[in-house]
Order: sequence, then structure tokens, then C-alpha cells
Amino acid sequence: MQPIAAEGPMTTRLLVSAAEPARSALDCLLRPRSIAIVGASPQFAKINGRPLKHLIDKGYTGRLYPVNPKYSEIAGLASYPDVAALPEATDLAIVALPAREVEACIAALGRRGVAAAVIFSSGFGEMGADGKRVEQSLRACADAHGVVICGPNCLGFVNAFDNVYATFSQYADGDTGAGPVAFVTQSGAFGTAIAALVRHRGLGLGYFINTGNEAGVSFSDLMLAVIEDPRIRVAAGYLEGMRDGPGLIRLAQRCAELGKPLVLTKVGRMAAGVRAAASHTGSLAVEDDVFDAVLRQHGVLRARNEEQMLDMLEALCSDRVPHGGGLGIATQSGGAGVMMADHAEELDLEVPALAPETQAALAKVMPAFGAAGNPVDVTGQFVGNPDLLLESVVTLLADPQVHVGIVWLQLMTAYVDLLVGIFCQIRDRTDRPFIICWVAAPPEAVRRLRAEGMVVFGAGERAVEAAATMVRHRQILRVAAENRAERAALAAAVERVAADVCGDFSDGVQPTAQATAWLQAAGVPMAPVALARHGDEAQAAWRSFGGPVVLKIESPDITHKTEVGGVLLKLNDEAAVRQGFATLLKRARKARPEARLDGVVVQPMTAGQLELVIGVQRDPSFGMVLMVGLGGVLVEVLKDVVFRLGPFSEAEGLRMLDGLRVRTLLDGVRGQPAVDRAAIAALLSRLSIWAAAMAPRLDELDLNPVLVGPTGPVAVDCVMVFRGQGGG
Amino acid sequence: MQPIAAEGPMTTRLLVSAAEPARSALDCLLRPRSIAIVGASPQFAKINGRPLKHLIDKGYTGRLYPVNPKYSEIAGLASYPDVAALPEATDLAIVALPAREVEACIAALGRRGVAAAVIFSSGFGEMGADGKRVEQSLRACADAHGVVICGPNCLGFVNAFDNVYATFSQYADGDTGAGPVAFVTQSGAFGTAIAALVRHRGLGLGYFINTGNEAGVSFSDLMLAVIEDPRIRVAAGYLEGMRDGPGLIRLAQRCAELGKPLVLTKVGRMAAGVRAAASHTGSLAVEDDVFDAVLRQHGVLRARNEEQMLDMLEALCSDRVPHGGGLGIATQSGGAGVMMADHAEELDLEVPALAPETQAALAKVMPAFGAAGNPVDVTGQFVGNPDLLLESVVTLLADPQVHVGIVWLQLMTAYVDLLVGIFCQIRDRTDRPFIICWVAAPPEAVRRLRAEGMVVFGAGERAVEAAATMVRHRQILRVAAENRAERAALAAAVERVAADVCGDFSDGVQPTAQATAWLQAAGVPMAPVALARHGDEAQAAWRSFGGPVVLKIESPDITHKTEVGGVLLKLNDEAAVRQGFATLLKRARKARPEARLDGVVVQPMTAGQLELVIGVQRDPSFGMVLMVGLGGVLVEVLKDVVFRLGPFSEAEGLRMLDGLRVRTLLDGVRGQPAVDRAAIAALLSRLSIWAAAMAPRLDELDLNPVLVGPTGPVAVDCVMVFRGQGGG
Repeated sequence: MQPIAAEGPMTTRLLVSAAEPARSALDCLLRPRSIAIVGASPQFAKINGRPLKHLIDKGYTGRLYPVNPKYSEIAGLASYPDVAALPEATDLAIVALPAREVEACIAALGRRGVAAAVIFSSGFGEMGADGKRVEQSLRACADAHGVVICGPNCLGFVNAFDNVYATFSQYADGDTGAGPVAFVTQSGAFGTAIAALVRHRGLGLGYFINTGNEAGVSFSDLMLAVIEDPRIRVAAGYLEGMRDGPGLIRLAQRCAELGKPLVLTKVGRMAAGVRAAASHTGSLAVEDDVFDAVLRQHGVLRARNEEQMLDMLEALCSDRVPHGGGLGIATQSGGAGVMMADHAEELDLEVPALAPETQAALAKVMPAFGAAGNPVDVTGQFVGNPDLLLESVVTLLADPQVHVGIVWLQLMTAYVDLLVGIFCQIRDRTDRPFIICWVAAPPEAVRRLRAEGMVVFGAGERAVEAAATMVRHRQILRVAAENRAERAALAAAVERVAADVCGDFSDGVQPTAQATAWLQAAGVPMAPVALARHGDEAQAAWRSFGGPVVLKIESPDITHKTEVGGVLLKLNDEAAVRQGFATLLKRARKARPEARLDGVVVQPMTAGQLELVIGVQRDPSFGMVLMVGLGGVLVEVLKDVVFRLGPFSEAEGLRMLDGLRVRTLLDGVRGQPAVDRAAIAALLSRLSIWAAAMAPRLDELDLNPVLVGPTGPVAVDCVMVFRGQGGG
Repeated sequence: MQPIAAEGPMTTRLLVSAAEPARSALDCLLRPRSIAIVGASPQFAKINGRPLKHLIDKGYTGRLYPVNPKYSEIAGLASYPDVAALPEATDLAIVALPAREVEACIAALGRRGVAAAVIFSSGFGEMGADGKRVEQSLRACADAHGVVICGPNCLGFVNAFDNVYATFSQYADGDTGAGPVAFVTQSGAFGTAIAALVRHRGLGLGYFINTGNEAGVSFSDLMLAVIEDPRIRVAAGYLEGMRDGPGLIRLAQRCAELGKPLVLTKVGRMAAGVRAAASHTGSLAVEDDVFDAVLRQHGVLRARNEEQMLDMLEALCSDRVPHGGGLGIATQSGGAGVMMADHAEELDLEVPALAPETQAALAKVMPAFGAAGNPVDVTGQFVGNPDLLLESVVTLLADPQVHVGIVWLQLMTAYVDLLVGIFCQIRDRTDRPFIICWVAAPPEAVRRLRAEGMVVFGAGERAVEAAATMVRHRQILRVAAENRAERAALAAAVERVAADVCGDFSDGVQPTAQATAWLQAAGVPMAPVALARHGDEAQAAWRSFGGPVVLKIESPDITHKTEVGGVLLKLNDEAAVRQGFATLLKRARKARPEARLDGVVVQPMTAGQLELVIGVQRDPSFGMVLMVGLGGVLVEVLKDVVFRLGPFSEAEGLRMLDGLRVRTLLDGVRGQPAVDRAAIAALLSRLSIWAAAMAPRLDELDLNPVLVGPTGPVAVDCVMVFRGQGGG
């Protein structure tokens, strides 16, 4: 088990037997050697009857104890009148009781020494304020009695490796052969549907877990536990709300360490969706753009819906990994080839020109078609000459620039045997991953090919997306390794800043000169500022800067200075500066009579070819998040901003800039020189370190604009807001 | 039949019998009463054996004549040694001969009086330059002999209503029950796959036609012919290249007149794809952005791939039409509801709040759930209480703001009878369209619901897209009716301009003053210009404008003036203007010694809050296409431009502006006033009329920038290029 078990909300570790090695409570939950079913029923169609039916039918080999005072025996097993009467302290209890009886049951389980419970019962947090109180009380009871709980209000879970069917989900009604996918879902109904779709694809779920209200173990706790199972190759999750950002990040990092992909779908992308999700799950809605960015930063593959999730899972369950980003396409239809090449371009997947030796080899295989490009059009001729398909695909996949292949064909209902045979030969003659895209395929062909471990899709663009997913996962692991290597240095940098920062930590808007000094000390390039408390000081500042200056009203109560006419530009003589000082004070007094006025900030004029907005905000789930975007009028229209959770490295800062849709602006347009991306990335990284160090106090920070000129970026305006010592 | 038959490349109309009413050659082709199969084989697995097999097996009731000198009888039918020996002039001949024998066969068919031929044979235009010459000769032969040809290099076609199987496509091997979809495809292999997918959906193809090389009838000719069939409700097309733009537009207009949706997929979206498409089909690649815009302008529903096409077809085959854009969602999973509501928002489909009376009625049906919003979460409780689902969906669909519904559920393998019954009751109790989204549905349920005429999807986001397609089709018909009403007025306006324009129509770049005068006369607001041939004239022009001016070098050989330093801004005194005149001439002589210099254009300075680029270009398929985009540095980065084929109305100009991603800029940001959209739309419409009138000469026109200020748009620079009298 991972150290997270000691960090999360679930801190209990119980020794279930002195004779055995120590087992964690999560191990007892997910891989129980004995199970009590509290509220068990002999009516197998009912919620409280279904787990026992499945456990017996599917061959659970541990000990089973129905608990129900109404029966002395259920399905041939002795039934116990209550928890206290159980003949042993079981690893797991399934609780299928009315809501009002659940808390007492958990207490009894704790007294009996039961390690973990999965609670089906609804009537808790999902029912509004009253239900939330009941749930809090349940959670406190479970903690007090040392029982780890999954749920309440959940369908339970399946561990198909060990035939543990602690669930009443419809999913368990069908074939539940174990496979390499672990699927954890916050939704019962949608989750069951997705689990069934995984089965339809022939992928197989090793674990299927519905977390319900997560009063005890959370989504991340459960996924962290199952991802360690060596039989699991891919983690898939469905989220509706997200409270435990750090847990999710630990999960993503652990998956990357293990080299196992983590595919997540989260509903609530749009504003309307967030509202509905909030009312549905009661979770604190995380702004989805931030959620999305932080997930991707940590190597999560986000699927926009269940179909895309399934496609990703199918691609990632392949036991082959592409060693580069080149896609080779062999097709029976030129048009399908064009469509796939187009989509590859959209997904930044390369469809490389073939090496001369590949072309020569293809020309030998397909003499009628002359120079064969990529996509390779093999036509339908292979029906008469199977070698045509076999040799052309093997040749294509041998090209040095081709790292993953797609073979497109259609129908061929009469040639299933022939084609399955050809694909098996292709598989044996290459070690590169390839995807079979068989449109309107005979179902038997798909079944047989999947049984041979091959990846089969039914639509060309989706096959291309699958290839892109394979390539993307490889990139994710590389970036994750880089980030892992930098983690300690970043943490040390954060500690250094935290130890060094000193000054006045009052609440609210910080004085510009103070904020500027802090950021300058942190290595963030800031335009110099001088606070003038009267006209003489303003003139002196202008003289010291030796050129045109900007004057800005300085007040902890005025954060949007332009709204009160509080900024004057390009002042360049004594009279103008003195006059400007007076004007700003007059305007501010008129517009905001109640505002405390500290004076006027004097700053030299700065020019730049490009205007950025950089900010820090506190995300309720994740913490201090940086934002960078294009400044100026268009920022509001384009909403072209990129987020990252701090602290992060300069390399991550570069990737951040690469996420801007207008990133080509950074390379210079219309003859302008390219800006210094590395300098901007360094600014972002340093700011992220400073913000992380100041997380206890910093609430909000805006550098707007940051002007980028030939000498790099300079922040010319800064609004920094602290919150009270106790947090917001 | 439509007038197009008299306009297209296919001009032959044959009277096949004096006793019958006149039948067009296309009617003979698609609905033949007799068929000769030239090159027929008794080996039914072969290309030349398959049509006869299918025609017999599937019950074609017309007369069949195999033609093959090797046999005296095939499949119990008399076989004829050659075409001349045929006992009648058949409506149709299927030609399955080697390429070298095809032309002679067509000539013989013409001599025998056969109206139409479908040519399977490959070895023509698809084989490169030599093949193209052979194909041209074939086309000339067919024209000379009055035979309408489909193909060559095609799979032929199916008319399932009349059991005409003039094809060797694998599609014909399966069940080919006729249905409301007409599908015409330029690709054989991909088209066959799509046809099979239509069958999988249970939709049914009335016609399935592969056009091949289109040496005779084109894609549009064939689709125009089948769309008239009253049994066809939806037209679906797959395109690889497009030569006949006007034909496609006539097709789109006719479909809109008939109220039948036209769904098109065209491969070759991206630059790489266009290259591959060009090499694959030999078609002149139309720039896809223009193609896409012109299609949408004319009401085509473009599907990006075959899956989206199938989804659209399924939605459009419904016999119910939404009378508004409000979507009501009933779901068994709150999360699925959120996902669908999100996607609706992305697709500009409204998910309206429910009326108080709807909420009250829902609260009665579902007392446990309090105020029921939209999406309505019906949970899985309906298994015990079927009325819950029935009444809640009927209530939801009765809401005045709900025009189309989606009902989401999953699995429920044990409740197929119950649910099919409920959905039939829902159907009978409402006349609003609704989509059943049943994830991981039992296949039997899908089959039964589709057999009941219901629309069934397996994924929530795709169901939302289907609802959006229904709504979109309704909008298309409304816009098409508007455009139809305006067509005559626009044509008259074009004629008026064509009659009025006079001036010097020399080739190449037009003098600025002349171009400005033409556009001003056409109602396009242009900043005034004066051509100065020496410094005195420049000074006089400055005086007459009475304010700061711009000077620009004027030369037919210099279209990019800034590149030679040929523009000077904000000159506002005599000396500066005179000096500027000299400077521009000097710079131009230095940078481009060979250029003819006409002098300098003087123009008053113009200001605007927004900068647009407006242009006209000649598209090889469609003709004069207008473009509008955001000007300035970002236009190159964002590529946010919108195209329309001219001439078009002001209403279409407004829709054009609405297509800009940065359209909110037009509403004013940061306190700027909104610009006058109607004035810009009027400019676009007038320019489109002028460009259409000048189509014989105009090659290219750029208004860049067009400044938009409080008094509307003004073009401040204009480059107009004419081509030679004979065209480019």
C-alpha cells in the first residue's frame, strides 16, 4: 500500500489477525477473506438479496455470514440475528439497511472488530441539509469505531479477480470476467452503463467501484488502492464533483510512476452544467477550466464523454506502446485514408512520408499502384491475393518513421477467417502497435480479433484518436518523469521563499511598493515604482527615472484604478508631474470619498510588442493556480488563457505558453521578432514558487499588463490581495 | 423531373417508346423496365455475375437480357451474343467489360437505342493521364450516341423500391429493404461501408448509388433525380472531390424546396487531406473552408465523418419536427443529465427552465424529488412504478418551451417489454419529437423501438447532437425560404450593376481612383481618394480634404504598398505633403525600379474602433466568394474569417458576421459602443452583388482595412485585380 492511506481522511489501519501480516483496512475492504451481509434477504432480486446471490453464483471463496434476525438460514448459510453474534470479526460488512439503522450498525461493526463496511443505504447527504447532518454523524461514528466505510448511497463494488461482488449493480447480472481495467465511479447509474460498455468491448473490469457519497473513503483513496494491483493496467474514473484536489493529484502522480494511464471523465464542463452538478451531487463545483488544466498538467487523460473514455481504454489496454508519434495508414478506401490523415493532422499526429526503401518495397508488393504514399491504398484486391494486405502492412509498419499503424477495411463478411488469419500474421511479424479499423465489421470478426489481443475500432476518426491516445500516454510518462525529477527542487525553492519573505502581512490589498519588492526579490521582473506622498516626491521620482512616467493613485481601497480615472500616462516635465499628482488625488476623492489614499505611485513608461495578463488565484480544490493569457481588448473576447497549479518548473512554464491558442503571436508576426519564451516561462515558474510559498496569506494576484519587449517581460501593474491569518 | 436535366452535362432525353409518356434518360437509368447485362457471367461470385444474381434473387420484375457470346443461356435466361442482337432497346445496360471494350460497347448500345448505361469497368481517369484521355473519348462517344452513362469505375447502384440491383457492391449481399434514405457516394469502398451502417441502424436505403468517375452523370445529377421520389425523405451524400459547384447548389436549393434534408460528408478538410484527395480522385481540390461555408449557406448539413452522418440520418428520418429550439431532458442519471445539458449549451440548444405548471405537475408525479428542473432526474424507481417514467416524460414534453425531448436510461436488460410499452405510450400521448438514449441497451430493445419508428441512440452527447440536427434542419428551411424570396431581387440587382458599370476594363491591378469610384457607385462606403501626379496636386488634395492625410504610392505593379515603404500617415502641412510625395516616389523607384508609377494617392485619415478585412476571391468550383474577417495583427494568428458565395442579401451578411468567433467585439467591449452590424452587412451584400456582376472580369478584390467607427464602415484601402476577357 501507498503512504496515502496514512494521509487521507481514512487513517485507520487495523490488524485483522495477529497471526497474519498487517493488512490495511482498504485491503480488507477490497479483498476481504470474510464478509458479513447485514440486512441480507433470501429474495435475490432485491437490493439486499443480490450481493449474496452474486457472491455464491460467481464463486466467492471466502466466508459469508448473512445477518438478519428474521431468518435462521439464507441460501444454505447460517444467518445471524445481529452483528454482535457474528462468529468472527469479518474483513468486510455489506450494509443494506434503512438509513436510520445504519449508524448503529456501524457502531456495532466497530465493536465486533469488523475492518470495513460498504453501505448501500440512501437517505444521507444526497437528500439535502438534513441528510448531510445525518451523514456527518455517520462519518464521526465510523471514525470513532475504526470502521472504514465506502458509501453510503452507493451500488457497492466488484473485485472480479477474487469474485468479490459487494454490489447490487445490474452490471453484476452479466458476464463479469476480470480484465486489466479498474473503474471507479461517483455515479451509480451512469457508472453501471459505462461498466457494461467496457464489457461490450471485451476489455474486462478487474475492479468496478461506485463511491457514492464518499463519507469515508474517497474516489482517490479507492483508485490509489486498486491501481497498485499488478493485474490492473489502466485506471478509469468517472467524476461528478471533486472536493479532494490533492488526493487526485497524488493519484495521477502514482499512476504515472507505475506507468499506468489514468483516464477520467468529469461532467460539468459548462457553466450550466456546473450549476446542475452542484445541485445534483452537492459538491463544491470546481471551475472546470482550472480542473481540466490541473488534470492535464498531472498527466491525466481526460475523456469528454463515455464513448471517448471507452475508446481510450481500448487503445491503452493494448500491450504495445508506440516509440514515437508517426502514424502509418493502410486503407481499402482512398477517401477513408484522407479522412484519417486529416484527423491525424488535427490531433498533431504525424503521418510521415515513407522512406525510399519502404516505397520501393511497397511498389514490389503492389506493382499496379506505382509510388505508394502514406496513407497506403491497398484496395480490395487482397481478397484474391491475401499477401497484398499482409506484406503491405508489414512493410508500412517497418518504416523507420512509422510508430503506430491503422489498417482500414470494411464489411468483407465472407472473408472473416482469411482476415483474422492475416491480422494474426501481421501481429506476429511486427512489434509495433497497430489498430484495426473495420467499418461495418461482422461481429464475429471483432470478437475473434479482440480475443487475439488486437485493438479493433469501427470508425476511422476514432481509430486515429486511439492512436493519438497511445502516443499521448507515452508523452505523459516522459513529462511526468521530468516533473518528478524537479519536485524536490521546487519544494526546496518554496521553502526558501517562505523562510525569506518578510514585511507587513496585513490583510487586504497590499501596497504597490511592497508587492513589487516581494516579487522582484522572487525574481519576477517588475517595472520600478516609487510611492510619492506629495507633489515634491512625485517630481523627485520623475527626475530619478529620467524619462516619461506614469502616475497611478495608490489606495488599498481602489483596485481598479482606471475606473476612477486614477492613471495618467506619459508625463515628462515637472509641471505635468506635479499637476498630475494633484489631479489623481482630486479624482480619487471625488469618485471614492471613503477611500484611504496613500499617495501616488510613479513608474517609468515601459513599452512592449506584446501584452500579457498573468494572475494567481486560489482554487478551492487545488490551491494556488497561475493563469497566463493574452492581454488587451481581445482577452475578454477570446478567453484564451492557460492555467497551471504551482509550484512548477520553467519547462512547465514553456508548456503553458504552448497551450495558448494565439501562441504564434509569441513567434512574432508581420516582421516582429519572436519574444523570449524562456524569459516568460522563468517569470511564470518563479511566480508559481512565490505564490506557493505565500499560500497561507495570498488570496489573489494580478499582473496586468505584463509587457513583453526585446529585453523580456516586465510587469507594469500589480494588484496583490492577502487574506486573514486563519484563511478565507 | 427537374429542369437540371436540361442544363447539366447530361442533355439527352430519349423517348423509349412512342406509346408511353416521355421518360428522361435518368428515369430509364434509375427505374429501368428492362436491363441488358453486357459481359454477364453465370459465375455469381464474380463482378459480372453478381448483378444478375441479385436482380433475380431480389425479384426485379422487368425484363432481363444477359449479353455474352460465350453463353446461350445464363441462369435460365437467353443470352445474346452482342448488343445489336438484343430483342429490344432496353432502358438500361449494365456494362461489365474490360476497359478497352467499353467505348465500342457504348457506341453499340447507342445504335441499338439503349437510353442509359452503368459502367463498372475500371481503367479510366483514375489511372492517370492516359486513363483520362480514354475517359474523355468515352464521354464523347456516349454524348455522340445519346447514351447517358453512370461511371465508369463504379460499383453501380441499387433502387430498392423497384428491386433494381445494377451493382456488384457487397452491400447487396445483405438485407436491402427499401427505406427513406437516398445515398449517393463518390467512393465505392467507403460508400459501401456507409450503406451497411445505414442498414445496421434499421433506416433503409431507397437508393444507393456509386458515381465512380462521373464521366457522364454527376453526383448532383443523380441526387437531383432521386430526391424527387416521394418515398425519399432524406438525402445523404459522400464526396471526395467537387467539380460542379453550381450543380451542388441547385441540389441544395431543390432539397430545401422539397423540405428534405441534405446531409453531406466530404473528405479533404485539412491541407494534407486536400493534397491526398487531389492525388486520389484527380479532382480539383476546392479550398475546404470555402466549400464548407458555401454548403452551409445553402442549407446543407455537413457531417464530419460517417458516424456523424449516420446520427444525422437517424434524427432526420423521424417523422416528427420540433417547432422550436428547446430541449427537455429526462434522465435516470443526474450526471448524464449534466453532460447532455452541457453539450446542448455547446451546440446553442436551449435547455429551458420549466414552466411553473410543468414543475407542479412533475412534483405530483415524483413527490420525493421536490422541485424538478430540466434535466428531470427520474432515477431508476420506475421499475417498480412505470407511471413514474411515463407521466414525467409526457409532462416534460408538454412544457410550452420544450420542443424536442431526450429520455436517457441504461441497461435494464430485464425490463425490455415494460420499457418498449412505456415508450409507445409516450409516443402516442405527445406529438413532439423525442429521442431515446439507451446506453448499453439490449439489442432487442433497440430493434423493437426502431421498428416502432422511434429514434434510438446509445450515447448522451450524440443524442443531443441529434436533437440539435432536428432543430437545425427546421432553421435551414426557414432561411432557405427567405433566401428563395430574395433570389429574384438579387439577380435583378446584379443585372442592373452589370448594365451600369462602365470604365476602362484593362487587365491586372485597377487604378485606385477607378476602383474606388466603381465601389462607391455600388454603395460600398469608401474613403475618398485623389490621385496626385506631382507635388502640387498632392498639396491641393490635402487642402481640399481639410485635415491630416495619408499618401500611398500608386502603381499597377505594386499591390503590397507597405512592403516598399509606400505609405505615409498623418501628414498635415504643405511641406510635409510635398516632401512625402517625393519620398514615396524615391522609395518606390529604389525598391522596384521596373514598376510603372502613376503617382501618389491622397486620402483623408480615417479612424475606427474596429478593423475588418473584406475580400472577394474566385473559387474554381463556385465563383465569386466574399470573405470577412477581423483585421490587424491577430487576423493571421486567429484565421477568424467567414466566407459566402455572392450575391447575397443583407440578412445573409448579418449571418456572416454572426459566424465570426470574435463577433462579441462587434457588440463593443470595455465600454466601447456596439458597431452598426446592419451597415457592415449592407456593405457585404452590396459588394457581393457588385462582384457577381463583375464576375467575368473580376479576379480578386481586397478591402483591407475596412475601419468601423460610429458612422459605420469605411474601406480605406482597395486592391482590385481584373483578369483577361477570356477568363483565367
